[in-house]
Amino acid sequence: MKSDELFALLRRRGFLWPTAEIYGGAQGLFDYGPLGWGLKRRIEEAWTRWFVGLSDDYYRIEPAELLPEAVVRASGHLENFTDLEISCGECHSVFRADALLERYRPEGLDGLASSQVAELLTLYQVKCPTCGKAALAVPRPFNLMFAVDFGPTGREMAYLAPETAQASFLAFSRMWEVGRKALPLGIASVSRAYRNEIAPRQVLFRMRAFTQAELQIFFDPEKFAPSLAAVGDDLLPVLRAERRLAGQAAPEPTRVRDLVDAGILPAFYAYHLALSFRFYRDVLGHPAETIRLFEKSDQERAFYNRIQFDVEVHVDSLGGYREVGAVHYRGDYDLGRHSAGSGKDLTVVTEEGRRILPHVLELTFGVDRNFWALADRHLGKDGERTLFRLPTYLAPVPLGLFPLLKKEHSAYARELQLRLEAAGIPVDFDDAGSIGKRYARGDEAGTPFAVTIDGESVGDGPNHGTVTLRERDSKAQERLAPDALIARIAPRLVVPSAPRPAG
Amino acid sequence: MKSDELFALLRRRGFLWPTAEIYGGAQGLFDYGPLGWGLKRRIEEAWTRWFVGLSDDYYRIEPAELLPEAVVRASGHLENFTDLEISCGECHSVFRADALLERYRPEGLDGLASSQVAELLTLYQVKCPTCGKAALAVPRPFNLMFAVDFGPTGREMAYLAPETAQASFLAFSRMWEVGRKALPLGIASVSRAYRNEIAPRQVLFRMRAFTQAELQIFFDPEKFAPSLAAVGDDLLPVLRAERRLAGQAAPEPTRVRDLVDAGILPAFYAYHLALSFRFYRDVLGHPAETIRLFEKSDQERAFYNRIQFDVEVHVDSLGGYREVGAVHYRGDYDLGRHSAGSGKDLTVVTEEGRRILPHVLELTFGVDRNFWALADRHLGKDGERTLFRLPTYLAPVPLGLFPLLKKEHSAYARELQLRLEAAGIPVDFDDAGSIGKRYARGDEAGTPFAVTIDGESVGDGPNHGTVTLRERDSKAQERLAPDALIARIAPRLVVPSAPRPAG
Repeated sequence: MKSDELFALLRRRGFLWPTAEIYGGAQGLFDYGPLGWGLKRRIEEAWTRWFVGLSDDYYRIEPAELLPEAVVRASGHLENFTDLEISCGECHSVFRADALLERYRPEGLDGLASSQVAELLTLYQVKCPTCGKAALAVPRPFNLMFAVDFGPTGREMAYLAPETAQASFLAFSRMWEVGRKALPLGIASVSRAYRNEIAPRQVLFRMRAFTQAELQIFFDPEKFAPSLAAVGDDLLPVLRAERRLAGQAAPEPTRVRDLVDAGILPAFYAYHLALSFRFYRDVLGHPAETIRLFEKSDQERAFYNRIQFDVEVHVDSLGGYREVGAVHYRGDYDLGRHSAGSGKDLTVVTEEGRRILPHVLELTFGVDRNFWALADRHLGKDGERTLFRLPTYLAPVPLGLFPLLKKEHSAYARELQLRLEAAGIPVDFDDAGSIGKRYARGDEAGTPFAVTIDGESVGDGPNHGTVTLRERDSKAQERLAPDALIARIAPRLVVPSAPRPAG
Repeated sequence: MKSDELFALLRRRGFLWPTAEIYGGAQGLFDYGPLGWGLKRRIEEAWTRWFVGLSDDYYRIEPAELLPEAVVRASGHLENFTDLEISCGECHSVFRADALLERYRPEGLDGLASSQVAELLTLYQVKCPTCGKAALAVPRPFNLMFAVDFGPTGREMAYLAPETAQASFLAFSRMWEVGRKALPLGIASVSRAYRNEIAPRQVLFRMRAFTQAELQIFFDPEKFAPSLAAVGDDLLPVLRAERRLAGQAAPEPTRVRDLVDAGILPAFYAYHLALSFRFYRDVLGHPAETIRLFEKSDQERAFYNRIQFDVEVHVDSLGGYREVGAVHYRGDYDLGRHSAGSGKDLTVVTEEGRRILPHVLELTFGVDRNFWALADRHLGKDGERTLFRLPTYLAPVPLGLFPLLKKEHSAYARELQLRLEAAGIPVDFDDAGSIGKRYARGDEAGTPFAVTIDGESVGDGPNHGTVTLRERDSKAQERLAPDALIARIAPRLVVPSAPRPAG
C-alpha cells in the first residue's frame, strides 16, 4: 500500500487521525483512536517485557515531560539541538536546509557548518520552492525545542522534553538509592518527546510530539560483559559505515561473535545489538531480510555517541529503509554533564570499591514509527480480504465475540465474555451485521481470534456450551468448549521474553 | 502521617520525587518511580475498566497533548482560563489573589471581578507577604495555559492541553463514523494536562503537569435514562450547595432514587454520580464516611457546567477534604463551540430521525490526586510495621518471590516466576537480606502476597514443590502447591466492574 492509502485505512478504522481533524489538523500531531491506542499500548508492553525484563535491576519510571532550563543547558540541547533552517527573503517561507538540498546531497548535511551549506546553495543555484525567487537567506540554526514561560514571573523557562533519555539521567542518583546500589542499573521509560520540526512529514516518521521507549543501562565499563552464549551465533544484518560510504547499500550478515572477536564491537554492545535485532524479528515479526543495522560514521552520529547503529526496517509505503530504533553507546557524557550542571556528584562506588562515573548504553525505540512500520508490514490485501496479520500478542483486540443471533445468543455470549475477561482475554462484543461482515471487521482490526455463539451453543444437544473458534490468518474453524478455548488462546497472548544474560 | 512525612516515605521507596531533583526540583513537576508508575498505571486501568467498561460503545483514545490555537479559542480557554494574579510593585513577587485573601475569604474568589478583589485587598489592608510593603498592584487575569511557538515561522501558536476533555470533543465526529452511529457514545482518555499554576503546592494537588482520566458521554437529552435498578437504593453522601452556603459542612446521606424523584437531579446524572461514589468506595477502598459529594453553586461552577458535583475525599495529610474527581453536565456547550469554531456541523441524526447536537456528561478523575489520596488513606503504621494496605488489584507489585537461601533456592524460584508470569501474575524477585527485611520492603510497597521458597520446596519430602504464601495484612502463612497458589491469587488481581445499565 502507498502511504496515503495506508493512512486512509487506518483513519477510517479509527487507528489514528490528525489532531484537531475538524479544524484541518495540526502539522505533525496525531491522535490515536481505540484500535490505535490498543496496538500502541501492546507495542509498549512488548518492548517493556523484552528489554526491561532483561534484569531485576532494570526499572520503568514515568517522568514529567517538561524540563527546567538548567537541565537542557547541561545536556547540550540548548546549544546543539538545532536544524539548519533557511528562509526566503521574498515570500518568508521557511525550509529545512537538508530538504532544500536533498536532490544534490541525499546523504544529508550532518557535520556541515552553516557557511558550507550556504556555499552548496550557491553552487547548485537553489531557488525558493514556494515563490521561485533566488532570495534564500543564509542558513541559520533553529532550536527544535518547544519553550514555555514557566511560572507567572516571565523570568523562568521550561522546555518540553526533546528526548526521553534525560529523565533517566536525572533519575540515576535517586534510583541508585532506591535499588540495590549495584551496576548495571537500568532505567526505562515510555514517554512523549517534543520537537518543533521545521517540516513534519511522512505521517508518524517526523512528528512534533511522539512517544519514545528507551532503556538507559548504567554500567561499569571495566565489568560489563554479558555472556554471548545465547546470541553469539546469531547473524546480524549489519551495514558498516565504511562499507556504506564506499557505495554499498546491502547489509552483510555477520556473526555476533565475529563482531566481537574482530574487535569491531565490545561484547556488551554486540549483545544488546543482537537482542534488539531479535526483538524486531521475533517479537514484532519483521522478516530478517527487511531489517538493517545501519552504522553511523564519526561524522554522522550524535555528538554524545561513541558507537551508534540505527535499526532500520524496510517500509514499503515510504519507499525505503527507515530508522525505527537505535543502540547508542553514550559513554559517560551525560552523567558528566549533569554532574557539572547540577553540582551533584554522580559517581558511585562499585562492588569492588572503585569510584566511577557510570557509562550509559541506550536502547531507543520510536513507538509511533514502529506502529507505522507494523501496519506497513502486516496490514494488506489477501485476495478479497483486508487483513492485519499482527502477531497475536500485539493485537489491540485479541478476540471478537459474535452471537449469531442477537436475541437468542447474546445472553450466553455475555456470560462467556465475563469468563474470558476473568482469564485475562479482552473481548470485543459485536452483534451487528452478518457474520461475514463481523469477520471482515475483525480481520482489518488485526483480531486473531473470532468466536461465534450459535444455536448449538445454547441448545440441549451434544454441542451444548461449545462455541466456534475461527482463526484470522488460516480461517480455520473449530468447535470448542470454553475451557479448551481459554487454554488455546491464553498462551498465544503472552509476549515473548528475551533470553536473560548469564554473565 | 503529615504531608512531609508521607512524601519523604514515598520518595525514599521510589514512588515519586521532584522532577530534576538533582537540580533542586522544578515547581509543580514530579516524576513517578518504579512503584509509583506501577500504582499509577493500575489506578488508570481500574478507572478504565469501571467507567469505559459501562458500554460497548465507550472507547478509550490517546490524544496528542498539544492543541492548535483555534481549538483553545473556540473552547473559551484563551479568554477564560485564568487565575487572578497580583504582583508587588516593590519586590516584583507574584501571588494568586485567592491565596492572598485566603484568611479573609476561605470560600475563594469564584465569580468576583478584578475590581471587587482589589476592593477586598484594600478593605483588609493586605500587604506583600515577601517584602511586607503595601505595594500590591491591581489584580489581573493570568492565563494558565502554556503556549509554544508552533513551527519555525513565529506566526503560529499551540498550547499544552489545559484539560483532557477537549480531545474527546475534537474526536467526536471521527468516532461517530468509526463506531455504531448511535448515542450514547463515550470517548475516554487518560492523558496529561498542563497548567501554569501561579503557586503550585500540596505535592500532587496543584501541579503544573498532571494526568486526568476522563470519560465524555455524548447523549441525546430526550433519551438518556439508564435504569436505576442497580443503584437506586444507594445512599449518597451529598452536600447540597444551598445547605453548605447556609453554614453546614457535613454531607446528608440521600437515596439516589429520592434525588431523582424530588427533581433535584435528572436520572442520568444521579446514576453516574452513584457509580462514581461506588468507584471511590468499592474499588479504591475509601471508607464511605471519608467521601463527600460536593455540589457547586451557580456562582462556583465552571461556566460551561449545568450541574457539577465534585467528589471529595478526606485527605488526612492535608488536613481536610480535597477534590479528587467530579461529574460535570456540560450540556451542548462544547460541541456548539467547536461547531462554530471549526465550521464543521457536529449535529447527528438519532435512531428516531431527529437531528440534534448531543449533550455531554463528563466523568473526570485526577489520577495524581487520587494517587496521593490512596497513599494517604492506605499507607501508615501498624505497630512496628509500615504497611501500604492497597486493595490487592491496585498493588504495583502483586507478589514478592523470596528464595530463602540465594544459592539453594533461586533456581526453583526462577522456575516458579515464569509460571506465575505466564498466569498473568507479575513478580518481584528478591533474594537480598533476611526474610523479615524482605517482608518489610513488600509491606511498604503494598505487595499483598509474599511467597517463600525454602528447603522443603526443593527437597524430596512430602512438601516437595510447595511454597509458603504470606498475606500482607493478616500476616497469615500457608503452604501451597503452585497451582493452588495461582488459583488463590489470580482472582484477587481482577479489578471489579461496574454494574452495567440495563436501560
